[in-house]
Amino acid sequence: MSEPIYVVGHQQPDTDTICSAIAYARLKKKQGADVVPARAGPLNPETQFVVDRWDVEVPARLDDAAGEQLILVDHNEYSQTVAGAEKAEIVEIIDHHRLGGIETSEPILFRNEPVGSTATILTQLFDDANETITTQTAGLLLSGILSDTVVLRSPTTTDRDRTVAGRLADIAGVDYEAYGTDLLSQKSKIGEKSPRE
Amino acid sequence: MSEPIYVVGHQQPDTDTICSAIAYARLKKKQGADVVPARAGPLNPETQFVVDRWDVEVPARLDDAAGEQLILVDHNEYSQTVAGAEKAEIVEIIDHHRLGGIETSEPILFRNEPVGSTATILTQLFDDANETITTQTAGLLLSGILSDTVVLRSPTTTDRDRTVAGRLADIAGVDYEAYGTDLLSQKSKIGEKSPRE
Ligand SMILES: [Mn+2]
Ligand SMILES: [Mn+2]
Ligand SMILES: [Mn+2]
Ligand SMILES: [Mn+2]
Repeated sequence: MSEPIYVVGHQQPDTDTICSAIAYARLKKKQGADVVPARAGPLNPETQFVVDRWDVEVPARLDDAAGEQLILVDHNEYSQTVAGAEKAEIVEIIDHHRLGGIETSEPILFRNEPVGSTATILTQLFDDANETITTQTAGLLLSGILSDTVVLRSPTTTDRDRTVAGRLADIAGVDYEAYGTDLLSQKSKIGEKSPRE
Repeated sequence: MSEPIYVVGHQQPDTDTICSAIAYARLKKKQGADVVPARAGPLNPETQFVVDRWDVEVPARLDDAAGEQLILVDHNEYSQTVAGAEKAEIVEIIDHHRLGGIETSEPILFRNEPVGSTATILTQLFDDANETITTQTAGLLLSGILSDTVVLRSPTTTDRDRTVAGRLADIAGVDYEAYGTDLLSQKSKIGEKSPRE
């Protein structure tokens, strides 16, 4: 009868936001929590490619979070959250951005680290919990890292991102350069389809 | 020539704030950073007992943090920080309280966990970094936990606090119940000396 906790990323979701929501919901479920992934908007073509490639169910769209319990991933400011988040209870935050000023009434887990992607931190959380990362989850987490870091070439890329990406590519069974090139080519398709972006 | 980074806890410092500042500065120094512990106010009698018991140098008082780089421990809101913190650069936060709305311009490490003390989280950070906890540092961290949790009896006490306290007591070579009773008796001395509190 009780409502689940929604793991949700930012508006105009990108690959790191969607893959992090899915992966963290999986980890929390393994730990016995009633948690489901959600999204705050439509998938972009790159992220659609990722969920097709790894045969993953697209998270349901959360249109109004008022009254819900939320775990925020890949953002930590109200200006970027799903509608209604100001009237929701934020119970955890996992992110890698500047601190956005969110206040809570109770102590919560907030893990913000200056690394290239939220997926990098989530890989650490699987390790900390001694939980195995499946091939599919590795594919998702790798996609989050490669998308945010432009295949480990962005100035935000850290040594941790490189190490984690190498390990995830092994588990996922892909060459991360080749897979990353595929990802980037999806980004350029966005331009072809929608010249205004 | 360059200024160090100051690790500083909240105003009206308590034992967790002072011991966490000292312990985290030690960890960061081991990792090669130019970091010193500081305090935002006078030591209370309990904390004075702790630094005497473990023969630790009292951190210097930071009167004006404007222009400095700060690591905040045991708090995460401007209303509780050292004077001048609004004009300082906050480069890390380690805490266990409600989220207090701090904003930064860059991504930083912010590790907030709903456990009984900041010292509990710091013990984890020593472990994560594979750094040995000395007898003295164990004594400080144990003091932070026992003070904040009223010797593991407060409703904020978690299983993690209990596990960590047991381990630190072993390293420090004390019985945590007996040592905790000593700590609490220092708290009651405060009342004797200053009936208005
Ligand atoms: Mn994102
Ligand atoms: Mn991201
Ligand atoms: Mn405190
Ligand atoms: Mn504390």
